Amino acid sequence: MGNNQLRPREEVVEKIEFYIDENELRPNDKLPSERELCEILGTSRTTLRGAIKRLIIEGTLYSKRGAGTFVAPKKLVRNLQDMESLSKSAVGTFKVITTKVIYASIIECNKELSKRMKLTLGSKLFCLQRLRLIDGIPAMIELAYIDYSLCKGIEKYDFSQESLYQILEDMYNVKIDHGSETLSVTYTSEQESELLNVENGTPVFFVTGNVFNEDEKMIEFYKSVVRADQIRFSSTLRY
Amino acid sequence: MGNNQLRPREEVVEKIEFYIDENELRPNDKLPSERELCEILGTSRTTLRGAIKRLIIEGTLYSKRGAGTFVAPKKLVRNLQDMESLSKSAVGTFKVITTKVIYASIIECNKELSKRMKLTLGSKLFCLQRLRLIDGIPAMIELAYIDYSLCKGIEKYDFSQESLYQILEDMYNVKIDHGSETLSVTYTSEQESELLNVENGTPVFFVTGNVFNEDEKMIEFYKSVVRADQIRFSSTLRY
Repeated sequence: MGNNQLRPREEVVEKIEFYIDENELRPNDKLPSERELCEILGTSRTTLRGAIKRLIIEGTLYSKRGAGTFVAPKKLVRNLQDMESLSKSAVGTFKVITTKVIYASIIECNKELSKRMKLTLGSKLFCLQRLRLIDGIPAMIELAYIDYSLCKGIEKYDFSQESLYQILEDMYNVKIDHGSETLSVTYTSEQESELLNVENGTPVFFVTGNVFNEDEKMIEFYKSVVRADQIRFSSTLRY
Repeated sequence: MGNNQLRPREEVVEKIEFYIDENELRPNDKLPSERELCEILGTSRTTLRGAIKRLIIEGTLYSKRGAGTFVAPKKLVRNLQDMESLSKSAVGTFKVITTKVIYASIIECNKELSKRMKLTLGSKLFCLQRLRLIDGIPAMIELAYIDYSLCKGIEKYDFSQESLYQILEDMYNVKIDHGSETLSVTYTSEQESELLNVENGTPVFFVTGNVFNEDEKMIEFYKSVVRADQIRFSSTLRY
């Protein structure tokens, strides 16, 4: 298998994943020591470390200083075709989603946002910034702008308890219909690092999205910063 | 706008995007100096630098040492619902996709791959590793494993010129039907950094996918490492 020389780290990554599977290791189970793993997997320490580093940033493993390397709890999977709420993604996973409201207020549409949302300069927007936690671990920061003319008084709801889309539908008869999302990668800023409890400059998903009603009217524009070790995106492909 | 205090960098990011738009700056146009930009956008140098760093990693801007900051060419967008080839994504964008074959050979299915692809241990796989370039810039490394029993002799084709899916369909009557993909974030290894021409440890997308025919038989398993400053993923959402 001449291939091995070309992709040693990827091969060790696969071997570790298989080892976890084969030995039925469960979340928070400890992996053997580096020395033992090198022997079991037939690899060098440098390659092993590279593979473990990759599996940590991807959220398969985590390490505790002085204690070793452990199997991480399964990541939450967000399907990219659905606009389902984070809470709905968590149904069936036994994960508990909680929300902290960082900012909720009515702001005036600046030039940038008025252009993007096709609103007059100075129109009112409901700006809602939320920290979402999965089993108590900060997982994403969501910043949403909503056309306030559609939902006057919405600031009175407690969005640490209520779902934004639910309130829009039930209380304001705003029918969310479709949207589009783009994904890129960014580094966390100081404030984001603090909120997400990660090191400054950690690479994370950066997600922006536009949400429309049936009549193609833009209801929401959002930007999210998502910890890649906590949430995985998945997509169904058609040919 | 009390909000500004909470998200100064994000606001400056929006202002820079708007500035580019409003002044109709085109790819490779130079941005004003840091000092001038601070004045124009009404921000501090620290916040400006944070915003520019974010826009560089996201691929909106690029910087040349000593020369300044420039508008980057538009990123290629890959729709996450389609299995269309990278070349098809590029249609209409005036971007030229080229391919270098890094590795192409028949290998034996190891334990990890046999489990994943539901093949007997030791079955043969066609392993194809390709570097894809967009306008000459290395953008992604694709590692594909194909069930070789479906495509004996496929190694004779030159995949720097031919499309893998096209050859499978036209020459082997393998009908690709659907698949699934997951996205996470990882760091480039030394070898990947060299191939992609980025610094060691650059955060990139890590994409894995399973591809099936109509009868739910797995045809391909792939893993890709994708430069986030070159390719953006997009998705259509339904509610």
